[in-house]
Amino acid sequence: MAYDDENVFARILRGEIPAEKVYEDEHVLAFNDIAHLAPVHVLVIPKGQYVSCDDFTANASDAEMAALMRAVGKVARDLGVVDSGYRMVSNTGPDAGQEVPHFHIHIFGGRRLGGLRRQAGGGE
Amino acid sequence: MAYDDENVFARILRGEIPAEKVYEDEHVLAFNDIAHLAPVHVLVIPKGQYVSCDDFTANASDAEMAALMRAVGKVARDLGVVDSGYRMVSNTGPDAGQEVPHFHIHIFGGRRLGGLRRQAGGGE
Repeated sequence: MAYDDENVFARILRGEIPAEKVYEDEHVLAFNDIAHLAPVHVLVIPKGQYVSCDDFTANASDAEMAALMRAVGKVARDLGVVDSGYRMVSNTGPDAGQEVPHFHIHIFGGRRLGGLRRQAGGGE
Repeated sequence: MAYDDENVFARILRGEIPAEKVYEDEHVLAFNDIAHLAPVHVLVIPKGQYVSCDDFTANASDAEMAALMRAVGKVARDLGVVDSGYRMVSNTGPDAGQEVPHFHIHIFGGRRLGGLRRQAGGGE
């Protein structure tokens, strides 16, 4: 899949759409999800143009991958959800319901987040 | 939290408990979840002794982080769920229901995996 540089995260990266930034470095941007689904709901994205987790894991550099992982941990620490707990989620493709074609990791926290079975598409 | 080297993933890494390996390299082991919750349900873990996502993102090397990300992508490719889609999930601490105190990423695929709201602890 070719990268669509009009997707909403590309536009946020270019500053064309505002976002509440919570972390930024050379390789990564993290910002609050505007349609937040939990008290803490942050999106962590690479600045590089990667369509999906598949694209990112196949083509990003060690430095980009490490920066993304470190940013996830740092955001959770900065937002105070390490002791209470948090979930990191990334969805790729139709079965997972990926909506924006720019790789992104969700961080959810600030409440009980439900069991593993539901994350796999099952009931409680 | 100190690392408990009797946790089940530590025992799998030492070969004391069998596992169906799907990928292994210097830094990473991936194996089928014995209590699988979707047609594809693989656990990807670092070989290093990291209690949680917090511990891993604070203390692992660039090479370990990149190896983990690459392994997630490779496992999904090898198991044929890239086009259909897959979900990557990691749970840290009580709100997220982390069960084993060794950092692990779940890969779910092979069926419709449900919406984002449920991953954040809400209803459909």
